[in-house]
Amino acid sequence: MKDIPLVDRRDILKAGLGLTAASVFGTAAAQDGIAAPVDPTKILGATNSPLGSRSPFETPQRIIPGTPAPASASFTPLEILHGIITPADLHFERHHGGIPLIDPDRYELLIHGLVDRPMKFTLADLKRFPAESKLYFLECSGNGNSAARRPEDLAEDITPGRLDGLFSVSEWTGVKLSTLLKEAGASRAATWMLAEGQDAAVMTRSIPMAKAWDDALIVYGQNGEALRPEQGYPARLFLPGWEGNANIKWLRRLEIGDGPFMTREETAKYTDPMADGRVKMFTFEMAPKSLITSPAYPEVMSSRGWQEVRGLAWSGGGSIARVDVSIDGGRRWQPARLQTPVLEKCAVRFSYGFDWQGEERIIMSRATDTAGNTQVHYAENESLRGPATFYHNSAIRPWKIARDGRVTFAMKEMV
Amino acid sequence: MKDIPLVDRRDILKAGLGLTAASVFGTAAAQDGIAAPVDPTKILGATNSPLGSRSPFETPQRIIPGTPAPASASFTPLEILHGIITPADLHFERHHGGIPLIDPDRYELLIHGLVDRPMKFTLADLKRFPAESKLYFLECSGNGNSAARRPEDLAEDITPGRLDGLFSVSEWTGVKLSTLLKEAGASRAATWMLAEGQDAAVMTRSIPMAKAWDDALIVYGQNGEALRPEQGYPARLFLPGWEGNANIKWLRRLEIGDGPFMTREETAKYTDPMADGRVKMFTFEMAPKSLITSPAYPEVMSSRGWQEVRGLAWSGGGSIARVDVSIDGGRRWQPARLQTPVLEKCAVRFSYGFDWQGEERIIMSRATDTAGNTQVHYAENESLRGPATFYHNSAIRPWKIARDGRVTFAMKEMV
Repeated sequence: MKDIPLVDRRDILKAGLGLTAASVFGTAAAQDGIAAPVDPTKILGATNSPLGSRSPFETPQRIIPGTPAPASASFTPLEILHGIITPADLHFERHHGGIPLIDPDRYELLIHGLVDRPMKFTLADLKRFPAESKLYFLECSGNGNSAARRPEDLAEDITPGRLDGLFSVSEWTGVKLSTLLKEAGASRAATWMLAEGQDAAVMTRSIPMAKAWDDALIVYGQNGEALRPEQGYPARLFLPGWEGNANIKWLRRLEIGDGPFMTREETAKYTDPMADGRVKMFTFEMAPKSLITSPAYPEVMSSRGWQEVRGLAWSGGGSIARVDVSIDGGRRWQPARLQTPVLEKCAVRFSYGFDWQGEERIIMSRATDTAGNTQVHYAENESLRGPATFYHNSAIRPWKIARDGRVTFAMKEMV
Repeated sequence: MKDIPLVDRRDILKAGLGLTAASVFGTAAAQDGIAAPVDPTKILGATNSPLGSRSPFETPQRIIPGTPAPASASFTPLEILHGIITPADLHFERHHGGIPLIDPDRYELLIHGLVDRPMKFTLADLKRFPAESKLYFLECSGNGNSAARRPEDLAEDITPGRLDGLFSVSEWTGVKLSTLLKEAGASRAATWMLAEGQDAAVMTRSIPMAKAWDDALIVYGQNGEALRPEQGYPARLFLPGWEGNANIKWLRRLEIGDGPFMTREETAKYTDPMADGRVKMFTFEMAPKSLITSPAYPEVMSSRGWQEVRGLAWSGGGSIARVDVSIDGGRRWQPARLQTPVLEKCAVRFSYGFDWQGEERIIMSRATDTAGNTQVHYAENESLRGPATFYHNSAIRPWKIARDGRVTFAMKEMV
């Protein structure tokens, strides 16, 4: 904020501009003690700067004061964002041994196992190969588990970001993993690989080779610049549409093998208890989901009349084919408008206009992807996945508009 | 950078972790005195944070040390960016009276003149209307004038960013201006409007109503977050594909009228002297342009063998239809690969692979848009536009690879 001079009465008087202070400045700072001139045309503005800063009136953050997050996670504040891009410093984070500090000049990625030529790639090596840049979402498999609690534990005072903000969209740049696999002569008969991070948790996951040969990337770029530390600087595995945890950050090793490696993170964790008591392993693909980000808690409807329902929809299984919105608790559904372009394994912004005249309403959205998969209600989700389900909660998210205009999370009312 | 603990030998010894320091840390900090652990898996990493920070090893900026920019401008460092998105704090800036500090709660946009109902819109009003989010480029009409100097003044030691970095790409969010014009009952017979900023320059430009009714936006969002101060916070006019100067920032007034208003910025400035001595006014649309960002100055080819030529192409006249690359000074041209999706009035990343074995080469790129317009060489550009041309320089930009691998701007060799 230092690039923005905060002008106050004394400055203007000292500057001796010959203006009546009252004609230029308001009687009080409007917000947070920031004194902005009433008429900025009378004040020379700030000069250029090596890096821009936000307006002092804008203070977005990933940790919402008063709603403690674990020290190993933070949430994208979806309710204040427009469009689909997540600014890099607001990208959600989730780590298991903290964020390592890695010297890019010492970085190496080892590819070994069922390969003709075990190889190490420096960061410069990775950047020299043909580069791909794609807009993709990234979502933690535990995202939205606040909507999967027992009915009595379901909160009403939860924001879209705190509910589903382990979700962000970036333009990711890297080299196709298939390019590196060809360089190393990876066996076409190999079925799985182990991906290993160099964080203090030495995070490891088993990845099917079919994905590795398909659209997997080793990425070093995020929204045009270098990958951020929380997202795996200097390089990570990126598996478009697959659960965040499998997209190993701070990647140091890929071991090509002939079966899953049964790491802790796919046996003790990141598994899905099903309704019949058995546990499903390896749910990689993120299901279609949509989320209304406005109106939503903690919003209070400012006035009656025309309102635009706004939200985000995405699917790991392809593109979003349609989003439907209900403003009457799910009795009738109407198609929402989708902002073009609708990209694969990326978010799409949807909107739906309606007239609000002070009545109580339950509003909700339902995404359907190009594979024909659709979001289901809480009860159906639970019957499919069992009462102990925790990851991959993509049930329909309802919000209630009260007569006084207050908006709350209404999952409890739908159970 | 404060969120990233910088661990050094003393810390680890004090922490008494029982590790031999030499086994964990390198003998010297690799860069800038930053001591990163050799093996980050032995150190608990940083915890979460309200806002992310770049790696301390990454220090991009808009003002290149040693290459002074006017205090009213700074440049996007195109040579270090990937993909098409420009991080908001690296978006180029250009202002005429500095960057005003504006209180969003006091912001109002007035629409008056040839309207049925003169109206004022608060920022909340603007946000309540149906929102549009689109990826568009923004380019200063003076961008690239370093390539339009007299032959003896053409530099060889200029970076892509310093040459053409008054160019950035963002996802812009706002309300369609046509929506507001309908609200105010703007006359369909009106032909021009005046757009006025509330900076100290009170920047004004005349805009044809055809554009206002077409795809013009009043934007308040940039890459998901609030517009940045340098880009017009809290709201600006956005005219997709049109010269930056006309996209009035810190917008406070639109006056609907029946002719151009002949402001200083379209009479004394932002006009184009032509070859016949006359001066062309109102060159709004940015011509097709492409720029190789690598290899480019100050790069030195690291090794022989396969190289990827990378760059950006865009056109204010629609979409890029093709980019051709020449690696032999313009004798032969080959089609470059375009990264999908190719969006309208946005940049597209192009690439072209070739084998370099230490020979001297002139490399260049040539963009053609869907309207059939193509970049031309320096001489043809000058013959079309006259020797005093300054704005809208979109001539083909050549780079020379020397035998020793050094890359320099080679416009002088093409004159």
